[in-house]
Amino acid sequence: MKKNQSRSAIATAGKKFRTKNISKRVRKIVISPIKEMSILADQLEEKIGKGKIISFGQGIPYLDTPSYIKQAIKKSLNEKSTASYTLEPGITELRQLIAKHLQNDKNIKNVLAKKEIMVSTGAQEALACALATVIDPDDEVLIVSPAFASHIEQVIQFGGVPKFILLDEKEGWALDIKECEKKISRKTKAIILSHPSNPTGKVLNKKEISNLAKFVKKHNLILITDETYDFLTYDKVEHISPASMPNIRDCVILVGSFSKKYRVTGYRIGYAFADEGIIDHMLKVHDALTICAPAISQKAIIAAFKNKKESSKSIANLKKTMSSNRELMCKELDKLSDIFEYQKPMGAYYILVKVSAKGGSASGRKIPKINSFKLSLKILEEAHIITIPGAAFGPNGEGHLRFSFAGETKDIKKGFQCLQKWAKQWKKENYKL
Amino acid sequence: MKKNQSRSAIATAGKKFRTKNISKRVRKIVISPIKEMSILADQLEEKIGKGKIISFGQGIPYLDTPSYIKQAIKKSLNEKSTASYTLEPGITELRQLIAKHLQNDKNIKNVLAKKEIMVSTGAQEALACALATVIDPDDEVLIVSPAFASHIEQVIQFGGVPKFILLDEKEGWALDIKECEKKISRKTKAIILSHPSNPTGKVLNKKEISNLAKFVKKHNLILITDETYDFLTYDKVEHISPASMPNIRDCVILVGSFSKKYRVTGYRIGYAFADEGIIDHMLKVHDALTICAPAISQKAIIAAFKNKKESSKSIANLKKTMSSNRELMCKELDKLSDIFEYQKPMGAYYILVKVSAKGGSASGRKIPKINSFKLSLKILEEAHIITIPGAAFGPNGEGHLRFSFAGETKDIKKGFQCLQKWAKQWKKENYKL
Repeated sequence: MKKNQSRSAIATAGKKFRTKNISKRVRKIVISPIKEMSILADQLEEKIGKGKIISFGQGIPYLDTPSYIKQAIKKSLNEKSTASYTLEPGITELRQLIAKHLQNDKNIKNVLAKKEIMVSTGAQEALACALATVIDPDDEVLIVSPAFASHIEQVIQFGGVPKFILLDEKEGWALDIKECEKKISRKTKAIILSHPSNPTGKVLNKKEISNLAKFVKKHNLILITDETYDFLTYDKVEHISPASMPNIRDCVILVGSFSKKYRVTGYRIGYAFADEGIIDHMLKVHDALTICAPAISQKAIIAAFKNKKESSKSIANLKKTMSSNRELMCKELDKLSDIFEYQKPMGAYYILVKVSAKGGSASGRKIPKINSFKLSLKILEEAHIITIPGAAFGPNGEGHLRFSFAGETKDIKKGFQCLQKWAKQWKKENYKL
Repeated sequence: MKKNQSRSAIATAGKKFRTKNISKRVRKIVISPIKEMSILADQLEEKIGKGKIISFGQGIPYLDTPSYIKQAIKKSLNEKSTASYTLEPGITELRQLIAKHLQNDKNIKNVLAKKEIMVSTGAQEALACALATVIDPDDEVLIVSPAFASHIEQVIQFGGVPKFILLDEKEGWALDIKECEKKISRKTKAIILSHPSNPTGKVLNKKEISNLAKFVKKHNLILITDETYDFLTYDKVEHISPASMPNIRDCVILVGSFSKKYRVTGYRIGYAFADEGIIDHMLKVHDALTICAPAISQKAIIAAFKNKKESSKSIANLKKTMSSNRELMCKELDKLSDIFEYQKPMGAYYILVKVSAKGGSASGRKIPKINSFKLSLKILEEAHIITIPGAAFGPNGEGHLRFSFAGETKDIKKGFQCLQKWAKQWKKENYKL
C-alpha cells in the first residue's frame, strides 16, 4: 500500500477500504488526486458556502458548450436513434469525419474510417482500451513523466508495471532518448505520453519525435499518445502527431478528445486511431467497458465537425482566451518567485510549478523538501484555492503543484490575490507544512 | 484461440488481428455477438437497402425516450455544469434519489447515498468496475448460465476464469444450488448473474435467492447482480433483490440500469450499489475507465426520478407493450413448434429458444445438433432477421437462439411471417446448415 499512498491518500484517508475479496491490482491503485481535490473542495464548500473556492484544479475550460452544438443536441432529440446504442465502434459518419480530420490536420496518411477509428466514451476510455490491449500481468509500460495521473493508475489497473521516463525540467521538460534506453527491458510492451503534456504543457519537437519513433521501432513497442490538447499550442509551436511518421504508423495508438476543443467535457466523447490489427482488439475491450459512446454526444461532435465556420470561430476564441490567461498566470507566478518556479508551457493549459527551495524568507531560511499533498491541502483549506499535488504525476512531480489556467480571467486574478496573502502567512510560519 | 472462437467468430472472421504486443488476455476475448450481429446487419443493409432487416437482436425498447425526459435534457443545456465533469461518483442529488429508490423499491435498508452509490457510464461500466475490483489473474468467477454475454468477456478481460453454473432449462431455467457447490474452488472470488435474466427471462424466486445467499455467505464470495430489468416482470412474478437480504448486504454488488426503464439506452447511464468498503475501490476503477458518467444523462435521470407521475405512466406503458409482445411472440413461436421450443420468460424481453431436435420434417428426419452461429447467420442472410446465437451466452446456450420482443408489434408479426416462409425452405433443405 505504500506505493499508492505516495500518489494519493487525501480523500481516501479514513475511508473504510475492505481487503477481503478485493483484487490486489485494485488495492494498488488510487483515485486520481485531480478528482480527489474536487471531492474535498465540495466537502469544504458545504462548510464555508458554495462559490467560495477558486479552482486551479481540474482542467475544464470555463466557457460553456458553444450554442451551435447545443442546437445540434436539441435537434438530435427528434431522432429516435438518439435513444439507442449506436454501432459499437461509433456512428459511421463520425468515424469518417474523424478520419478526414486525422488526414487533414494531423497529416496521417490513408486513414481507414471503418477499420482504424474507434469512437470512445471520452479519451479516458480509449486509453483504458489501449492499455488493456497491450498489458499482460507484470508487463512494463514506459510512462513519460511528469505524466497525466490517470495513465499511471490505468497501467497498474491492468496489471502492468509503470517505468518512468523522467523529463528534464531545466531544459523545459525535454525528452532525452537516453533516459528511455535506460528503462527498457524485455518486459517493456509500450510507451505512453500526453502530448501536449498534461501537466507540464510540454510539446515534443521534431527531433524528439523522430528519436522517439526510432526508439519505438527499435524495441518493437506500441506508442500510446494522448493528444487531448493537440489544438492548443502557444507561440506558434507546432504539434506533430507521432502517427504521422510513416515508419511507426502501424504501432501507434493515438487517443483524441473533443472535450476541451469543443467544450463538451461532460459529454464523455473521444476516439482512438490505430492500425486495424490493434483497433480490432481495442473494440472488444470497448464493448466490455461501455458498449458504445453516448449517442447524443456522438451527434454533437458530428455537428461540430460539419459546422466548420462556427467551430473555427469558437476554437480560435478559446485559444485566444487561454493564451492571455497563460500570460496572466505566468505574471502572477513571477510575483511569487520567492516560492514558485516554473517552465512556461508550450501547450495545454497547465503549469507544473516547482515549489522552490531557493528560500527567500527574511530569515534566509530554506523551504524544506515539499510534500505536495500536504501543501495542496493547506492551500485549499487556508487560501480556498484548488491546486493539484505534483506527486500525482509521477516521481519527478513531487515538490510541484499543478495550476490550471483554464478558468475565468477574473478568477485567476482573484485567486492569486488570495495566494499572495496566503504566501505571506506561510512565510511567517517559516514554510511549515 | 479455440475457446473464444466458440463464442464468436462471425464479424471477426477474416479480420486482421495482430498478435505482436497484444495482451494474451485481450486475445482471449471476443466482441459480444449481440453487437456483431448489428454490425453484420449494417453491412448487409448496405447491399440490400436500409430498413429491410427486422431485428430480434439487440434489446432496446422500440419506444423513443419519453418527452418529459427530453424536456429535462433541453433544460439542462442552459446550465453550464452540463458542459463539465460531475463529481466522479455522480451528482449528489442523483445518488440520493438512487438511494431512496433502493430503499423504497428494492427494500434495502439504510442505503448511504454518499458512500454506497456510484453513478456509472451505463450498467456495463459498473459491471466492469465490479469485476476489476474482485478479480486477480486466474481467480475464478461463477457465472450463472445462460449468461449475459458480456459478463463472460468481462471476467476474461480482467484475467479471471469463468466457471459456469448451468441452469436447468426443463425446470424453467431453475437455479440448483448443488450445481454451485460443484463449481466452487479455493480460487472462487465471486458469482455473477443477471436477474431478471438476459437471455432467459428467468427471475429467481424467494427460495432460490435464500439458497444463493447462504451459498455466498458460506464461501465468502462477492455476489454481483445485474438488475437491468428489475422493473420488468410478468404474471405478477415478484423481483427480489439479493441485496435486500440483510445477511449478505455487505457482500453484494448490485448493478442497475436506467436504459430500458426510462428508454435512455443511448445515454449510457447506470449505477452500482455496494458496501462502502467495496464502492471505494470501484470508484478508483471508475475514475480510470470513464472519469464520470455523462452529465446530461445524469440530469435526465434526476428528472425521471423527480417526475413520478410521468415516469410511472411511461413505465406502465412500456410494461403493457412488452407484456403483449411477449404473448404475441410466444404464439408465433408455437406455430413453429416443429423447430422451436422455449420456456416462457418471467421477466425482461428475451426468449432463449431451443432449436429442437425433435424432428418434424415430413421425412421424419431429425434436426442435427445446431451450430447457433451458423443458424443465426443463415437466418440473417436468408430471412433478413437478426437473432442472437445462443453460444454467446455460455456452454448451455449452444443450440439456442435469443429472440428479443422489445421491438414494434408490427415488426414481430412481419418478422415471423418471414421466419415461417424461411422455415419451410429450411425444412426442404433437411435443416442443413
